[in-house]
Amino acid sequence: MKPVKRIKDILKSTAPEDSLLVRGWVRTRRDAKDFSFIELGDGSSVANLQLILPKGIIEADTFKDINTGTALEVEGELAPSQGKGQKWELLVKEIRVLGPAGPDYPLQKKRHTDEYLREIAHLRPRTNKYGALLRIRSEAAFAIHTFFRERGFYYVHTPIITGNDCEGAGELFQLITPGPGAACGLHPQAPLKTLAEDFFGKPASLTVSGQLEAEILAHGLTAVYTFGPTFRAENSNTPRHAAEFWMIEPEAAFMDLSGDMDLAEDMVKSVLTQITSGCTEDLELFDKFVSEGLLLRLEELKKKDYTRISYKEAIEILSSAEASFDFMPLYGSDLQTEHERYLTETHFQGPVFVYDYPKTIKPFYMRINDDNQTVAAMDLLVPRVGELIGGSQREERYDVLVSRMKELGLKPENYWWYLDLRRWGGTPHAGFGLGFERLLMLVTGIGNIRDVIPFPRTPGNLEF
Amino acid sequence: MKPVKRIKDILKSTAPEDSLLVRGWVRTRRDAKDFSFIELGDGSSVANLQLILPKGIIEADTFKDINTGTALEVEGELAPSQGKGQKWELLVKEIRVLGPAGPDYPLQKKRHTDEYLREIAHLRPRTNKYGALLRIRSEAAFAIHTFFRERGFYYVHTPIITGNDCEGAGELFQLITPGPGAACGLHPQAPLKTLAEDFFGKPASLTVSGQLEAEILAHGLTAVYTFGPTFRAENSNTPRHAAEFWMIEPEAAFMDLSGDMDLAEDMVKSVLTQITSGCTEDLELFDKFVSEGLLLRLEELKKKDYTRISYKEAIEILSSAEASFDFMPLYGSDLQTEHERYLTETHFQGPVFVYDYPKTIKPFYMRINDDNQTVAAMDLLVPRVGELIGGSQREERYDVLVSRMKELGLKPENYWWYLDLRRWGGTPHAGFGLGFERLLMLVTGIGNIRDVIPFPRTPGNLEF
Repeated sequence: MKPVKRIKDILKSTAPEDSLLVRGWVRTRRDAKDFSFIELGDGSSVANLQLILPKGIIEADTFKDINTGTALEVEGELAPSQGKGQKWELLVKEIRVLGPAGPDYPLQKKRHTDEYLREIAHLRPRTNKYGALLRIRSEAAFAIHTFFRERGFYYVHTPIITGNDCEGAGELFQLITPGPGAACGLHPQAPLKTLAEDFFGKPASLTVSGQLEAEILAHGLTAVYTFGPTFRAENSNTPRHAAEFWMIEPEAAFMDLSGDMDLAEDMVKSVLTQITSGCTEDLELFDKFVSEGLLLRLEELKKKDYTRISYKEAIEILSSAEASFDFMPLYGSDLQTEHERYLTETHFQGPVFVYDYPKTIKPFYMRINDDNQTVAAMDLLVPRVGELIGGSQREERYDVLVSRMKELGLKPENYWWYLDLRRWGGTPHAGFGLGFERLLMLVTGIGNIRDVIPFPRTPGNLEF
Repeated sequence: MKPVKRIKDILKSTAPEDSLLVRGWVRTRRDAKDFSFIELGDGSSVANLQLILPKGIIEADTFKDINTGTALEVEGELAPSQGKGQKWELLVKEIRVLGPAGPDYPLQKKRHTDEYLREIAHLRPRTNKYGALLRIRSEAAFAIHTFFRERGFYYVHTPIITGNDCEGAGELFQLITPGPGAACGLHPQAPLKTLAEDFFGKPASLTVSGQLEAEILAHGLTAVYTFGPTFRAENSNTPRHAAEFWMIEPEAAFMDLSGDMDLAEDMVKSVLTQITSGCTEDLELFDKFVSEGLLLRLEELKKKDYTRISYKEAIEILSSAEASFDFMPLYGSDLQTEHERYLTETHFQGPVFVYDYPKTIKPFYMRINDDNQTVAAMDLLVPRVGELIGGSQREERYDVLVSRMKELGLKPENYWWYLDLRRWGGTPHAGFGLGFERLLMLVTGIGNIRDVIPFPRTPGNLEF
């Protein structure tokens, strides 16, 4: 079975072809007197290839098998289309059914709800919408790799299984290895091996971030980034949270908070530019059926300067806003979703960096500013999605870091290697985390994280 | 702090520069009468930038801090070098110590053992060898993305946390979520939440392969590939096994076993071509210090046709070999490492695909051949590394798949969605898995998997 041309490329043909082999799945079939019209798709584009199938070249039995969902191999003549709506069509000479689909096929030609499609996540990649999403997802990943590579950032793999991250124990997935002979579907109350016998000889959990290890690598290679899965065992059912999601975490030596914001803004704009030029047809689908005005909004995100305000200014703006918030904007508290929306959607009507947060609401590793009250942290808030990026300059001063750890009740000896980075050849350095699924929600206008990841993991959902 | 030129690019300069800002770490310092010579590296290349530091432009106290490992920011004039070994050197006008390194810095200028460096994995990215490895690792990942993208394969993310894969329960890491208020370092014998209360409402483990889900996606997009972490809780301490490693798993509809082998061979050759042209200097280091003859061997791997033999032929060759094996080559048994080595290193002296294995030693999803005894499986064996790739054509016939499951004691209802792919629009399809770390061992000649991954996870090792 030799590879054949993809339909996306066939549709771009510049000349007819006498004999062309195509493979794909039937999207629709419409029967006329002497011909059947079949729309054939192979997942390479929203647009299908129209097949003209003359009556009589196939057996009735085979014909019966050609329904929405059927996999076909077709040979024919590629000719300029007589009909409207497409430039080319394929006049079928031979047709082979590779895998039929009966009338019970769950994806008939009609609009299905997102909820229904989540239940058949093994079939939804065959729909126009999820096909388009998956192509954009692939292109977005490549755009991210391209952006960082061109800037001299090296792609690194930080560990998934970790013995660190002791801070948020309640939000961690912990690991066990079943004893010898344990059956599949081990019940959590079944007897487990003792700690000493356990695989790693100490408690292990799934990473919530590769940052600490990325800092190690940035002190070798100057500039690195991760792109890998991260996990939260948070039992929250919201449209923006998943238990398993992919993060991109650049980290660079010799970079301060201002450089960190420059990098984040450049990255978002560069990635959007690559996606809007590489996935035009797919984005048009989302503009038309999912989020009206999407394309215009993406153009603005590519052009606009992103506003930068301190946390203090943000609180001032919110405090004097003529809006009724459920939560009062208070200096020293986290910004709530309603506050983020007000800043980005009402006040600035565009992306906003908020920087210099009170140290009381931020973790130990962020660099203390000269006021000794705030840290060099930044969040990038965007309309509709909220927090897209969170980053900071890291505390590079050994003594300051140690006293900050003690202040927060952390044991410095658990962070011996992290402190070593400050003992020898430490540098001012910074980085951020971008949630890949959040980026895709921004790019496609899809409102639920469950619909931008092929097989979402959320509380109670572990199918597929 | 504005980004500055990387040393790799400075060394390629075509003209002098009056004023150039550079940042990096001191590799060595050598003092002469009026000058000090400092080799400065920033992780962008094996070669360093030579700094000429006139005595007297800095305080004695600062000078004392400039040792191997110290982080510096330097301004000076880029001029043609007076010495040999480098084209350019930097005549220092200003120098700032960003992070000193005292004489207790663990990476002094001498050769360290791999074992020692594994214990200080937070510092080893600063060495020439691991810097080169990490740059090659990054370039190899990009080469893989480039290869598949150019061929119309979409990058997909299959889930890390899974409820499937019930077959090898003993080799799975299982997940638990601690109850509310559980402390970090939960002891596995501490009381756990009951199954019904657990996060997903059913047993969860870490994936050993994204294949089954990739098959879903290939039936939507025709051709996809994963690139993500996979896990084995196998308690084996060998130089080729890690508990956590990265895999690339392409999967394509309308592809048979022969196309699968074509794809694997093209991929290996294309990736090697991109790495050897993009990482020449780094590979030279490995050729010189780690594995003599490496560059020549890589050239051969790019040019040679890879031999293809059936498992039956492989057993015949091994049976008539004039070699004394610890394990007799027996039809119906797995090939042992010594057999793989004989085939690739002695008999064929190059890569070998072995295909059509007895079904008794292969999993349920591989396609049964017409002889009803063998399956359409293939392994790519390479000299020194052994099995680099394992793949197969998948069983697309619903009835054959169901009876194979029953034969093996699997419950078809646990695979309802996998079977659905065969109910509607099924296709002949195939794919393979490439161990990313195995590929890096092949490319660099490094003999231990612990030295091609930044923070290896093996039994008893969970530091960093």
